[in-house]
Amino acid sequence: MKKIAIQGELGSFSHMAAVAMRAKSMIVPCQRSVQVFELLKNKKVQGAVIPIENSLAGSVTEHYDLLLKYSVVITQEFNLRIKHNLIATPGAKLSQIRQVYSHPIALDQCRKFLSQHKKIQVIPYYDTAGSVQHIMDQDMFDAAAIASELAAETYGAKIIKKGIEDNKHNFTRFFFIQTQAAPIAGGNKTSIVFSLPNQPGSLFKALSVFALREIDICKIESRPVPGKPWQYNFYMDLLRGNDVTLQNALRHLGEISDFIKVMGVYRASN
Amino acid sequence: MKKIAIQGELGSFSHMAAVAMRAKSMIVPCQRSVQVFELLKNKKVQGAVIPIENSLAGSVTEHYDLLLKYSVVITQEFNLRIKHNLIATPGAKLSQIRQVYSHPIALDQCRKFLSQHKKIQVIPYYDTAGSVQHIMDQDMFDAAAIASELAAETYGAKIIKKGIEDNKHNFTRFFFIQTQAAPIAGGNKTSIVFSLPNQPGSLFKALSVFALREIDICKIESRPVPGKPWQYNFYMDLLRGNDVTLQNALRHLGEISDFIKVMGVYRASN
Repeated sequence: MKKIAIQGELGSFSHMAAVAMRAKSMIVPCQRSVQVFELLKNKKVQGAVIPIENSLAGSVTEHYDLLLKYSVVITQEFNLRIKHNLIATPGAKLSQIRQVYSHPIALDQCRKFLSQHKKIQVIPYYDTAGSVQHIMDQDMFDAAAIASELAAETYGAKIIKKGIEDNKHNFTRFFFIQTQAAPIAGGNKTSIVFSLPNQPGSLFKALSVFALREIDICKIESRPVPGKPWQYNFYMDLLRGNDVTLQNALRHLGEISDFIKVMGVYRASN
Repeated sequence: MKKIAIQGELGSFSHMAAVAMRAKSMIVPCQRSVQVFELLKNKKVQGAVIPIENSLAGSVTEHYDLLLKYSVVITQEFNLRIKHNLIATPGAKLSQIRQVYSHPIALDQCRKFLSQHKKIQVIPYYDTAGSVQHIMDQDMFDAAAIASELAAETYGAKIIKKGIEDNKHNFTRFFFIQTQAAPIAGGNKTSIVFSLPNQPGSLFKALSVFALREIDICKIESRPVPGKPWQYNFYMDLLRGNDVTLQNALRHLGEISDFIKVMGVYRASN
């Protein structure tokens, strides 16, 4: 069975995305993102699943930086609907809960629920699923965690209240990454990163290579170039597979940019 | 004396930036960013200082979101060179230190130093200056903090080792914000935010209004539109003051965009 590294604990949203993308695999949880990339690099796993962007909180910028630094290729994307649940030890009741543990972003996304339950003290924790494990390990009858259904199932905990997220338009986009891959049949989306000389109009010129060929840019992200203050690497997602038009556009971009890296060509998620 | 709110504790880098921008003022420290904006809104302070971007770690995305949400105007920017120092209680020696507290970004920016001192356990803390206050309050003789010189001075602590940051090209850009302001004499930089219809080529068209008028874009940042997955607000810094050319460009952008907000026209920092 293939080993898949995830950023997060067992039962995390990354775990759910990994199951959706590769049902039959052995999940290797990692607390830190760099560990995921090191496991891939050292061939300890055959693939990895990382969150890249949440539709409310925005980009996971650390993962953009790691995608540039490591020699990996994106072979799949998956949009997971994020449903937060209040989870406690079996037998616990909502009225008894006095503390709630979760990742700061999850806590922030359940602000309405928490403001209606002012007796519950909010405690930031490094991971959503890890917070479920914590209250179960410590047998904390007056504490709850905010995490996925899979986290409750994984640690034998109980969902006290389902779907407590403020905004239902809450999705996280995940990438499946590998160290190498054959071209993906039906790949219709391409992720690239490049840098530009520090000249007026250079970003406009870079976008023109796509606009002139009617290639749609669905995401742009800028990240600092380390050691060069106020210079940026640009990450772009293009709604186009690896056809002649894309190749022409990338060759054209090569005339303008300092470097280009194609991070992957894959099928767009629904 | 005017009151200035900062995001961070007394002795934080925000405090240093506030002193650099407004030497004679009473500093009101805030643990949470939203508190800074609330104090401004409720006229409890006359101005506020917020970090917007670090040249290594990237944008403070929460502050971009708050600049859009609240009715504030950017009246000044300031680039502060970030020097991290190992700070301990007076009398403590480097050889005795077994724990170091600081904000995760500061710890991450001192990785080389920390990897050379493997006996020192790294403990993330919510604030750099707050970590100095913590070791002083608790009189922790075997613990240190990583923070600014001003933090050591503020809490009567001692710098054990100066300048332990990995990369000397480490700057944080701060904004001075107010609820209203007269036009700034010599303002040569403009920050805007806008959104675009979800159409192919719309970002290219938006950039063209500046390229066609030779207005240089020095920063672009995209942030999600809450409740509209995979749609973005675009934040741009333009190297141009409020002249006729800029006004023409913004009127032109208005033809393309769903909304535009001018967040401020100010003098570019060195």
